[in-house]
Amino acid sequence: MSQKLAFADDHFHDECGVCGVFGHPEASNLAYLGLYALQHRGQESAGIVSSDGKELYVHRAMGEVEEIFQPSVLAQLPGSLAIGHTRYSTAGDKALLNAQPIMIDCNKGKVALGHNGNLTNAAEWRRRLEHRGSIFQTNSDTEVIVHLIARSQARNLSGAIGDALNQVEGAYSLLLLTQDELYAVRDPRGFRPLALGKLTTPGGFVSWLVASETCAFDLLNAQYIREIEPGEMVRISKSGIESIHFAPEKPHQQCIFEHVYFSRPDSIIFGRSVNESREMLGRLLAQEHPVDADIVVPVPDSGVPAAVGYALESKIPFRMGLIRNHYIGRTFIEPSQAIRNFGVKLKLNPIRGLIEGQRVILVDDSIVRGTTSRKIVRMVRE
Amino acid sequence: MSQKLAFADDHFHDECGVCGVFGHPEASNLAYLGLYALQHRGQESAGIVSSDGKELYVHRAMGEVEEIFQPSVLAQLPGSLAIGHTRYSTAGDKALLNAQPIMIDCNKGKVALGHNGNLTNAAEWRRRLEHRGSIFQTNSDTEVIVHLIARSQARNLSGAIGDALNQVEGAYSLLLLTQDELYAVRDPRGFRPLALGKLTTPGGFVSWLVASETCAFDLLNAQYIREIEPGEMVRISKSGIESIHFAPEKPHQQCIFEHVYFSRPDSIIFGRSVNESREMLGRLLAQEHPVDADIVVPVPDSGVPAAVGYALESKIPFRMGLIRNHYIGRTFIEPSQAIRNFGVKLKLNPIRGLIEGQRVILVDDSIVRGTTSRKIVRMVRE
Amino acid sequence: MSQKLAFADDHFHDECGVCGVFGHPEASNLAYLGLYALQHRGQESAGIVSSDGKELYVHRAMGEVEEIFQPSVLAQLPGSLAIGHTRYSTAGDKALLNAQPIMIDCNKGKVALGHNGNLTNAAEWRRRLEHRGSIFQTNSDTEVIVHLIARSQARNLSGAIGDALNQVEGAYSLLLLTQDELYAVRDPRGFRPLALGKLTTPGGFVSWLVASETCAFDLLNAQYIREIEPGEMVRISKSGIESIHFAPEKPHQQCIFEHVYFSRPDSIIFGRSVNESREMLGRLLAQEHPVDADIVVPVPDSGVPAAVGYALESKIPFRMGLIRNHYIGRTFIEPSQAIRNFGVKLKLNPIRGLIEGQRVILVDDSIVRGTTSRKIVRMVRE
Amino acid sequence: MSQKLAFADDHFHDECGVCGVFGHPEASNLAYLGLYALQHRGQESAGIVSSDGKELYVHRAMGEVEEIFQPSVLAQLPGSLAIGHTRYSTAGDKALLNAQPIMIDCNKGKVALGHNGNLTNAAEWRRRLEHRGSIFQTNSDTEVIVHLIARSQARNLSGAIGDALNQVEGAYSLLLLTQDELYAVRDPRGFRPLALGKLTTPGGFVSWLVASETCAFDLLNAQYIREIEPGEMVRISKSGIESIHFAPEKPHQQCIFEHVYFSRPDSIIFGRSVNESREMLGRLLAQEHPVDADIVVPVPDSGVPAAVGYALESKIPFRMGLIRNHYIGRTFIEPSQAIRNFGVKLKLNPIRGLIEGQRVILVDDSIVRGTTSRKIVRMVRE
Repeated sequence: MSQKLAFADDHFHDECGVCGVFGHPEASNLAYLGLYALQHRGQESAGIVSSDGKELYVHRAMGEVEEIFQPSVLAQLPGSLAIGHTRYSTAGDKALLNAQPIMIDCNKGKVALGHNGNLTNAAEWRRRLEHRGSIFQTNSDTEVIVHLIARSQARNLSGAIGDALNQVEGAYSLLLLTQDELYAVRDPRGFRPLALGKLTTPGGFVSWLVASETCAFDLLNAQYIREIEPGEMVRISKSGIESIHFAPEKPHQQCIFEHVYFSRPDSIIFGRSVNESREMLGRLLAQEHPVDADIVVPVPDSGVPAAVGYALESKIPFRMGLIRNHYIGRTFIEPSQAIRNFGVKLKLNPIRGLIEGQRVILVDDSIVRGTTSRKIVRMVRE
Repeated sequence: MSQKLAFADDHFHDECGVCGVFGHPEASNLAYLGLYALQHRGQESAGIVSSDGKELYVHRAMGEVEEIFQPSVLAQLPGSLAIGHTRYSTAGDKALLNAQPIMIDCNKGKVALGHNGNLTNAAEWRRRLEHRGSIFQTNSDTEVIVHLIARSQARNLSGAIGDALNQVEGAYSLLLLTQDELYAVRDPRGFRPLALGKLTTPGGFVSWLVASETCAFDLLNAQYIREIEPGEMVRISKSGIESIHFAPEKPHQQCIFEHVYFSRPDSIIFGRSVNESREMLGRLLAQEHPVDADIVVPVPDSGVPAAVGYALESKIPFRMGLIRNHYIGRTFIEPSQAIRNFGVKLKLNPIRGLIEGQRVILVDDSIVRGTTSRKIVRMVRE
Repeated sequence: MSQKLAFADDHFHDECGVCGVFGHPEASNLAYLGLYALQHRGQESAGIVSSDGKELYVHRAMGEVEEIFQPSVLAQLPGSLAIGHTRYSTAGDKALLNAQPIMIDCNKGKVALGHNGNLTNAAEWRRRLEHRGSIFQTNSDTEVIVHLIARSQARNLSGAIGDALNQVEGAYSLLLLTQDELYAVRDPRGFRPLALGKLTTPGGFVSWLVASETCAFDLLNAQYIREIEPGEMVRISKSGIESIHFAPEKPHQQCIFEHVYFSRPDSIIFGRSVNESREMLGRLLAQEHPVDADIVVPVPDSGVPAAVGYALESKIPFRMGLIRNHYIGRTFIEPSQAIRNFGVKLKLNPIRGLIEGQRVILVDDSIVRGTTSRKIVRMVRE
Repeated sequence: MSQKLAFADDHFHDECGVCGVFGHPEASNLAYLGLYALQHRGQESAGIVSSDGKELYVHRAMGEVEEIFQPSVLAQLPGSLAIGHTRYSTAGDKALLNAQPIMIDCNKGKVALGHNGNLTNAAEWRRRLEHRGSIFQTNSDTEVIVHLIARSQARNLSGAIGDALNQVEGAYSLLLLTQDELYAVRDPRGFRPLALGKLTTPGGFVSWLVASETCAFDLLNAQYIREIEPGEMVRISKSGIESIHFAPEKPHQQCIFEHVYFSRPDSIIFGRSVNESREMLGRLLAQEHPVDADIVVPVPDSGVPAAVGYALESKIPFRMGLIRNHYIGRTFIEPSQAIRNFGVKLKLNPIRGLIEGQRVILVDDSIVRGTTSRKIVRMVRE
């Protein structure tokens, strides 16, 4: 009778959001707020692990950050260290099983780990590790990393992390939490972003923050310090911040989609403003593909900066000709027979009077497969 | 320890959304979709009453439309007639008690009623009706209207509705549903909007729709016919559409805030495009208050069209300098001590690089008390 | 694929539970505990209305008492007066609509009302009241009573209640709450029970309680004072307790099923111990229908006292030969094909070794239609 | 303001319930029903893993069996093999993390495992395994077993299970599920029960069942075949049933509390009727501790059979003098100030008239620490 709408938006979705806090009496509260600012990077599940210096505490659940971390839940996550993770839905996936941070007990003690990225040799390593007697409880690449850490002969954790990461290939921005340390690591190619921030309380007390995007720092009134560098492992402990280069840098391969649509425009990613990038792409498009038209209309929300750029460059007026409905949730179910082919209409509606009889330049963030774009164009044409 | 954030946005919120369907085999499905398009008019509670020609069926609940009307719930609302209502939260209110449509049994039969508006003499009528032995089960003005209908000596329902409405003063756009009729009524001053639409199925079958805003028709692929006129009662039954002028028109007093921020920019309200109005307000502002500045920045989302208008008129570049977080829900609870004075930061974040060192014209939809505007300005200044 | 099990237990279910508190600083907490003790009288919905002397506060919801009245909900029900109601599920019913207590505003002020019983002339009165312009928002008989109270010419509430009740016929044990008074009323035939209790705090402070069954007093450490008499209205206010006989007593017609299975065996109902009644019925059965057998086995839980009585009288050993599964909830859905005809097996399982080869006297609380009894007998025979 | 009641019932609670199904087209439905019959062995969390011959499917959640396994959930657990587990709450425990069955991927393929019991050398093995590079994701002993299986050099799974179990000490009744096999194993001392059953469909098709207690077979209309023997591993596959003695039997140490209060009276445990055991304990008590009294009263529900036995032996009349409230859930929160020391009153209430002035022999299932017993005795004395 009814069917779940697949909001195929033609976009890749490999991104997750991570956020870490060191040295703040309300670490899990801050991690929660950081995740809330990173919610656009994943709405399927979220989790926080905190430490009070003795124990690790964990809560992971399906849903959005705000629903999951009610005050009663946050109260169960004490301590001055915390890491959080928010995850995008992947079809066909054992969802809760794969929620992060994962938390394990091994010969290096209790370790929690939140991972944004994908390993290219995870399947191979999984086979090899299983062969040696390892067991796997999730489907995620991340479990490979913790096994390699546990099996490393290195004498300390930072050595073991380095050992492990030198054996895997692919993209990772990682946060690791122990009883009293926070590690922030980025792969040698720097595929996914990870930024370091600093929060100074009125009393002059300093806490350290790490987050996928700097918009998390803005919400927390924290200061953006710098990117974690490709191939760098930052270890934050009571003795301060230590930078370890666990691997030689490789040719950088920063994920272009971070600037195109993953990240929020108010974030600084790979050291550069996302909004500026998108505006610039719009300007370049206007230079490379000038079109004679009456108005420039963005596909909101992610298409707005590029449309602004296109309009600025081309001197063709910017108009908000498509309206987005933000009330659509993850669970919208199409009542089947009534109206066929809602297509993109549940999300977007053109302003007829504005568009009618006009030559419209429609600017979206990107075209991947183009099926959604085609639907939007058809809707606008009608 | 924690406190609920009051998202005081300096705005009045008297609006609700109503939607009616006549003559469609999936009436409640359509009413649901219509309410979904009107969700911005009220997120506290929603309800639908349907009729299969014999019985009325009702479901009302707290929350957003999409959560409430799961397929299993819609399946309990059969028939080819339906009306729906979505309601804005009013502080201190018995929420579920006052959810609409209200449904009663009286000497005119079973009647359901959804109301957008406020009566000015409701308290007086309530006293008078109680004096005569009426009982009240809700706090809403709407209950006064049904009592007056029930007590009318008129021989038919349309007469009784006319009787009742000629005794009350104030604003109302009303939908009434009986077993086999749908009434759409607008007060003689036309304070709140109400539009008539028409849905023609491929087979040539015609259904009638009524909605607070035309964006509901767009979603349903329906055609906008006209406004219900001030002082008009439209009665839709198997015999067709009948227009009754139950009261002489009074000087029109259309609520200006419908165009300023209540309605969606893609709606036609009071016969005029909302987006056009807002752009025009921006243009007028630019004419009346020209300022020498570098960029025009809207307070999203409702401030965007006015900012576009200002930019077009002033030739000062439009830039999206504030980013809105759409993930904030009704239940966000501020973890108290960590960060003081989130203020507007949970919703809005400036793009530093874009704004820094620039002379910025900040355009919001309106300034009511100005407290929020002041916070936004302070945030942008920082 | 699956179907909801109808737990046809051959029993009539007209009972509800009511509980009232006057003069206790935690009135709604006590009402909650009282309802918890009366949960067996209705598991579909429950509600509490409290008063702090100025305002009435209400919460009603579907479900069991313990789920509904979480501490956060009880905190919204302040004041030293409260009444509560728990309701049995009636098929095909608009459940939440009919949840009680109902709360109205009328010319006698704000009044809340909880009703256990059924009127025999409710439909007739409803027609008559609608004819005079009254509107009905629920399907329950109770709404007739509040209309009659509101329309009474009596100068005070107790007079109006008397007026109203003298016009209706049928069964009612009623609790009414105003800002500062609690009324407890029983119909002239005394069909449903209602008892008065008293709670004395260590400091010597006295609170008054009213409840359907005395087991509510036991839980609250309160003292059972007496039955509300048939045709009596007890008015509890700051001036103390007043007894008003609003109607001449009629021949008593106490519902036999209260003693047979509605009430808890530890309650005193109509001035008599329920357990004693059930044991006595078992003894009488043994006298009137002596059977030569090896063991007496009850159908638990309600059949236990009668079986004990039968065993005592007949000198045949009592054995617990049937075990009841108490984990079955209101929502059990039978996975359809696997096992056909679960019948009573989800609730009851015989102890094979105890029954095999024995002549068994199976004692249930009553046989109404006998279909369930037949299934139990068949199961025991197998 | 309020506090959660700890229903300290003086009882040890190490038991869990397990249930397995082989060769039935609705395996997960049957596992669900089996768990429902075993619900008394654990109400905190439950889980089912099924196999369709290719994939394993899992669902685990907090709560009771009936709530968790809605039809939509069971529909996601296809296949003709399944195992289920229900778990008792242990204070301070990471609840969902430790829900079972656990499901892993290792060099022996995908394996799911449900465990009832406690290992005595788990901590030691955990240390040893971590030392060798194993990681632990739960706190449960069960994870030790899967690690040992994964690290075994044995060529097939049954060999690896034997290897693993010969290295651990303690109590276990285990179910293991692979793509196409079901294993049922009991420790060499036979501490926890595990029974084999058989379900023959009308068409003569045979399915195999395994369950902690035979009451699960009764509900499924299945036939009790025999106990899994101490030190036996039963392997059920398409080739039939195979019995492997993986370890020499040790002196039997069957847990006495299974007969005293863990198991349902209608179950056969360790080859013997639980009800018979309890009655016999009551008889022995009457022989060893004869008391001159007027009535024998059980503490329901688990004390009933022993009280019946005591009454039969002593010829003192059995009376149901304490009534149990079955509506209390896991979440009952005591509204604090109103009534102090609810103690056992929320669960049990004496029938005053029956007990007053009588010499009462109160029979409970057992006395462990005696604190609850003392409270019950005090309540009865009052």
